[in-house]
Amino acid sequence: VVCKGLYRALCIREKYMQQSVQRFPRTPSQYLRAIEGEVWRASDAGPVFTPPVKDGQDPFETGSLAENLGYHVQMKDGVVYIYGDKAAVGRNEPKDLPYPSLEHFVDDMNFLLALIAQGPVKTYAHRRLKFLSSKFQVHEMLNEMEEMKELKNNPHRDFYNCRKVDTHIHAAACMNQKHLLRFIKKSYCMDADRVVYDAKGKQLTLKQLFQQLNLHPYDLTVDSLDVHAGRQTFQRFDKFNDKYNPVGASELRDLYLKTENAINGEYFATIIKEVGSDLEDAKYQHAEPRLSIYGRSAEEWPKLASWFNKHRVYSPNMKWMIQVPRIYDVFRSKNFLPHFGKMLENIFVPVFEATVNPQAHKELSVFLRHITGFDSVDDESKHSGHMFCTKSPKPEQWTSEKNPSYTYYIYYMYANIVVLNNLRRQRGMNTFLFRPHCGEAGAITHLLAAFMTADNISHGLNLKKSPVLQYLYFLAQIPIAMSPLSNNSLFLEYAKNPLPDFHQKGLMVSLSTDDPMQFHYTKEPLMEEYAIAAQVFKLSTCDMCEIARNSVLQCGLSHEEKAKFLGENYQEEGPQGNDIRKTNVAQIRVAYRYETWCYELNLIAEGVAGETAPGIVCSGNGGCGFCCPCLSELQKGGMRSEP
Amino acid sequence: VVCKGLYRALCIREKYMQQSVQRFPRTPSQYLRAIEGEVWRASDAGPVFTPPVKDGQDPFETGSLAENLGYHVQMKDGVVYIYGDKAAVGRNEPKDLPYPSLEHFVDDMNFLLALIAQGPVKTYAHRRLKFLSSKFQVHEMLNEMEEMKELKNNPHRDFYNCRKVDTHIHAAACMNQKHLLRFIKKSYCMDADRVVYDAKGKQLTLKQLFQQLNLHPYDLTVDSLDVHAGRQTFQRFDKFNDKYNPVGASELRDLYLKTENAINGEYFATIIKEVGSDLEDAKYQHAEPRLSIYGRSAEEWPKLASWFNKHRVYSPNMKWMIQVPRIYDVFRSKNFLPHFGKMLENIFVPVFEATVNPQAHKELSVFLRHITGFDSVDDESKHSGHMFCTKSPKPEQWTSEKNPSYTYYIYYMYANIVVLNNLRRQRGMNTFLFRPHCGEAGAITHLLAAFMTADNISHGLNLKKSPVLQYLYFLAQIPIAMSPLSNNSLFLEYAKNPLPDFHQKGLMVSLSTDDPMQFHYTKEPLMEEYAIAAQVFKLSTCDMCEIARNSVLQCGLSHEEKAKFLGENYQEEGPQGNDIRKTNVAQIRVAYRYETWCYELNLIAEGVAGETAPGIVCSGNGGCGFCCPCLSELQKGGMRSEP
Repeated sequence: VVCKGLYRALCIREKYMQQSVQRFPRTPSQYLRAIEGEVWRASDAGPVFTPPVKDGQDPFETGSLAENLGYHVQMKDGVVYIYGDKAAVGRNEPKDLPYPSLEHFVDDMNFLLALIAQGPVKTYAHRRLKFLSSKFQVHEMLNEMEEMKELKNNPHRDFYNCRKVDTHIHAAACMNQKHLLRFIKKSYCMDADRVVYDAKGKQLTLKQLFQQLNLHPYDLTVDSLDVHAGRQTFQRFDKFNDKYNPVGASELRDLYLKTENAINGEYFATIIKEVGSDLEDAKYQHAEPRLSIYGRSAEEWPKLASWFNKHRVYSPNMKWMIQVPRIYDVFRSKNFLPHFGKMLENIFVPVFEATVNPQAHKELSVFLRHITGFDSVDDESKHSGHMFCTKSPKPEQWTSEKNPSYTYYIYYMYANIVVLNNLRRQRGMNTFLFRPHCGEAGAITHLLAAFMTADNISHGLNLKKSPVLQYLYFLAQIPIAMSPLSNNSLFLEYAKNPLPDFHQKGLMVSLSTDDPMQFHYTKEPLMEEYAIAAQVFKLSTCDMCEIARNSVLQCGLSHEEKAKFLGENYQEEGPQGNDIRKTNVAQIRVAYRYETWCYELNLIAEGVAGETAPGIVCSGNGGCGFCCPCLSELQKGGMRSEP
Repeated sequence: VVCKGLYRALCIREKYMQQSVQRFPRTPSQYLRAIEGEVWRASDAGPVFTPPVKDGQDPFETGSLAENLGYHVQMKDGVVYIYGDKAAVGRNEPKDLPYPSLEHFVDDMNFLLALIAQGPVKTYAHRRLKFLSSKFQVHEMLNEMEEMKELKNNPHRDFYNCRKVDTHIHAAACMNQKHLLRFIKKSYCMDADRVVYDAKGKQLTLKQLFQQLNLHPYDLTVDSLDVHAGRQTFQRFDKFNDKYNPVGASELRDLYLKTENAINGEYFATIIKEVGSDLEDAKYQHAEPRLSIYGRSAEEWPKLASWFNKHRVYSPNMKWMIQVPRIYDVFRSKNFLPHFGKMLENIFVPVFEATVNPQAHKELSVFLRHITGFDSVDDESKHSGHMFCTKSPKPEQWTSEKNPSYTYYIYYMYANIVVLNNLRRQRGMNTFLFRPHCGEAGAITHLLAAFMTADNISHGLNLKKSPVLQYLYFLAQIPIAMSPLSNNSLFLEYAKNPLPDFHQKGLMVSLSTDDPMQFHYTKEPLMEEYAIAAQVFKLSTCDMCEIARNSVLQCGLSHEEKAKFLGENYQEEGPQGNDIRKTNVAQIRVAYRYETWCYELNLIAEGVAGETAPGIVCSGNGGCGFCCPCLSELQKGGMRSEP
């Protein structure tokens, strides 16, 4: 029964990933088909990434944009539908695309909710996870030296020159505090008399603006800038959000960290390009900064796209993402929005329109080419009180001032991404991954919603609290971008971070900075993140390189780039997919991970088939769940394993 | 009785510091005089540092060297004596200098040994330390925001541009692993066909050397270099020492990290100068690298001085120290030395001779001008089994293969430094501080020996184990250069490091790297050290700036430099000595530290005088030991303190 439940949970995720043109690994798919007695067939239905810009090519060129399809785009019940023309709306004849069904989603969700609460499933997952931990420890004791030997014999590649991607970073905080400070001082030297700010119609020069704030940039320090998170922000997300205001002044945030202002976001674009150029200098570091779309107005997209194109905000070491803050309640209370549906419309309809008719939205279409995914962000610890179900008001009927629940947000973002991705794939355009913040705080239902809808997540701390979900995230190898330094300032002390535990068990974790402006001290925030993790968690070189490899697999880099950074066969799972010359991850490690993963999947397959009752009879080949390839080493050494 | 014991212990330290031209703070001196009913008089008897090199001045100039005194220098019972001429030796008429007395030293040591073991003293010290902890926590709760406000209002100065000194770093590991790797590759590009190595008479070019090692520098990685400490080195100082050999090959250590080799230490000098130039670029960072004198032969000093002068190893951001490894047993077992006295002779006699007759030892005299202190190094966890007492064999009689105890080493180094410093002060030359490694591991007697003899120490971890010594280190404000990342790889997990605890209690701690080659990942090891401490221990900006200020106070920078970096009055104790514009340490913090320190000293004074029985009667002015300046804030807020 337990195995059947886990089997069905994996099938659910597989279905939702395929539907949304996101990723589900091959190995569990093969096991699922085997369980069903079917033949597994490889499919090419994965996400589509924009290939890297070639030498001489202009990242902002508009010559190759596709033709206008002339389709009509309209939202219904919070999901955008595509019609051949306006008349088809009346006939209710949308184009043939997979429009997700709320009923099915709720059904699947309820099944999973029941599953993660079931006693026997919890016990099973808990035991398997514990076993995975111990097994890794045994692996380490036996093979650590062998792994190190492999790495030492691997010429020219070490941790410093293997690729790492900062898989979770916010553009508005992607520079460190010292960088921002220096930039403010520099801008004052150059632009003191330039009009840079519009204070309710009154034009202010940079000098006047600082005078009004009673500040002189020369005197400014990182202390007075006060953007760094400290002890005051622990468990206080609200205080943390205020840290985005340099010197506590929203004027400076508007001027330096926003894309829309009297100088059209020029300073912000310059800072980001400086960060990009630092990454290019470091060569082996990449980042995936998030820019905000709030859904307050439909103009946000063209404005953001215009900023992006105008300032040519491009770096080969950056891939872009869109983050949507879950702040409908703020907008509604100020009457900026009539209902939640309007917010979704503002977020998605412009993207659909640019997808249908790129010629009429050239800047936006170029911008979308550089976007690799959507993120959903805000304080997860705020409880909404709303329980998502089929009876929940439709987005257009959600007129209350209350904020919808996390799951409600996630579902509607997911549903629109499904339609959008299928439409874009049809058109040969790049598709988007859904990569929400999830499990940083709040209820474990967040992690359940992401299990169904997200290609990968950021944070995932709360997987600590649900063994079943943790085990499912392991089985489905859902990537988790973790940021222990960020957690340390906000939600969880560094030494208590579950990252080393997850890594040992074989969950697919990567390291990311979240907000270098608030959390980091040095010039290389991502290296700082790795260095501290290595020191405090005592990670070996192989561990660090594995985490770096995970970050490349997780991220939105194109197929071509991944093949270059990880090796041609990176899409293969298991040791064939690892090119040690590129990744500096020992083959022994990758083989161990793969064997362990298959072993767990196989247990489920056997459990469903009822062939073996796991943990009872030991035939010495691993059927008992206690003897495993690396334990058999122990036996060779004279120890007998008695199940 | 307890207070009398502590009083006497402080008097002992004061005496030994004055005798050796080292530092003892004014405030406890004033209390000690008050207890004795005497009038305190300021003395100028502090250490003498070489002033900084002026613009246009050559750091290696020999024009200003002093004349030959013609004195005769000879060691007796392990201590160098100065005679007017050779004939005076026979007459046993040494020059009038303070030659330390072993009997007095042993007496004082025995007194302190008894003191730290006394029950009531232990209880008293333990309680006072606990009180200091809690008091700091109250201070923080009440004044954290005020401190932050002071720092925010302090123009232009923040943690990044206040001075920090790496107070404990070994020259042979002062570059990080990536730097060394890059240097090796670069040297191969430039010098492949140069003869760089002498393999028992066979001259090898760089190319031949690498061929012999079966290596090609292009393939070399930080993994194959294998100089980084990992999980394997924890509690294994022996394995750690092997990490000094790149690729496990002592040939490469000889070539790249030694001052004596076929290329006269050219590569080593170049690497160190590169590190120096990085410090100069960073501007606010300084370092005090240690070079080794082993005492195996009297030629070590002139050779090392020649290396220093020849390669002009100078950086304004570096001050030099000499480290003496405690490895007599190794030399004796190979019959390099007849007895321990010979080792001391090799270490000290050349320095005395250069002091008496600089003209005849020009290079060494210049070198000594740049030296600021002596360090004693090696694995403290090795137990010697020898108990130092008056009956211990004299160094000349120590012919056994056994290594003398830590205290034995320390005493004889101290004794020679006493004579040397007094002689050098007479001659207007710079003097040396004694700054041994102490309390990294091993017995707490090490910390007791250092309490008597050392200006300041490195590590001090084991102060955790002795409340009395910890309290004495607090009362005497003995600086402690701590290296939590080094400890994390060798002796103590990061999160368990006592640094934050010591800092809270008000011990004078600084942060240092020890061995960037083995422990650090980033380009700025000292910043990495501060960043990790800030993150894991949740230090505030004020904490970090206080630690940085401590590092400048502790180090061997000259009076002129300290005045420039900390403010003119840096020698004053308490708030007058703090110039927030330079140090970025809040005055509230410095005032708190000073009040707290005086309060504890006053308790001892009162205890000795028997005027007040501490902790019994409360007159509201602090006499009870429980109400204090910051607690009185609480009372204003309506709370009554009931002792």
